[in-house]
Amino acid sequence: MTRLLIVAATLAGLLSALPAAAQFRKPEDAIKYRQSAMALQNNHLGRVFAIAQGRVPFDAKVAAEQIEIVAMLNRLQFAGFIEGSDKGGNTRAKPEVWTEKDKFAAAVAKSQEDVLKLVAAGRSGNLDMIKTAVGAVGQSCKGCHDTFQAPAN
Amino acid sequence: MTRLLIVAATLAGLLSALPAAAQFRKPEDAIKYRQSAMALQNNHLGRVFAIAQGRVPFDAKVAAEQIEIVAMLNRLQFAGFIEGSDKGGNTRAKPEVWTEKDKFAAAVAKSQEDVLKLVAAGRSGNLDMIKTAVGAVGQSCKGCHDTFQAPAN
Repeated sequence: MTRLLIVAATLAGLLSALPAAAQFRKPEDAIKYRQSAMALQNNHLGRVFAIAQGRVPFDAKVAAEQIEIVAMLNRLQFAGFIEGSDKGGNTRAKPEVWTEKDKFAAAVAKSQEDVLKLVAAGRSGNLDMIKTAVGAVGQSCKGCHDTFQAPAN
Repeated sequence: MTRLLIVAATLAGLLSALPAAAQFRKPEDAIKYRQSAMALQNNHLGRVFAIAQGRVPFDAKVAAEQIEIVAMLNRLQFAGFIEGSDKGGNTRAKPEVWTEKDKFAAAVAKSQEDVLKLVAAGRSGNLDMIKTAVGAVGQSCKGCHDTFQAPAN
């Protein structure tokens, strides 16, 4: 639990160090940024799933490394949903991201909480913990996408 | 120096844990992956430059965090240049990436070496070291792009 709190504090510290709007010159930049982070995250989360599902042999070090990458990308992506970036690029984010801020914030918090548990599982080196935790992360992703992302064309 | 060697060993370990071709189902996936990593890296490197050039106030913790993000993205991007991904998507990578492998490998090694020095500078908390190191990283980026990337349309 202590370790989890330390990870949480570290993530919170990093997030607070990212003044969201200041880092993008225009909405398109924010959209490209969050889409890039999600594309990378999808790739690395896929590798954790491959481990959890036994499609690649379990190596605790590799799993932990992949999970740390997922965690970094997860927190980067959310910095891209700045005010005014509902339009301006080829985004599938629904207006609800900005019109239902509390609901979106709760979904972000859920995702981050589940990722923290996955990080703790990765650091534990316990495959069963990783399986459970990555499943929860997958559900968080799906839940948020179902609510806040329009279907692909 | 010891710390730098430890960082180098860590990066090398991570790279060895990424069997390049295995992570992409098709060339387009690798192209999207490396472009996503470069887009994110460009954003975060820009923030380090903003600090180095005094456009934002220097905060050693923020600078170090941004540099760690750059370092992770830098090593991810190079995993995207797999064999066969010279075509298959909207890539500006020149054929020389794959036809002049030794030259490209040297450019990758130079980039990684310069990023390691930037990581060390970030961890030192010394702004002058960061200024020097980020300038060298910028030159590495430019050198590689000049040689191995076709101009934007």
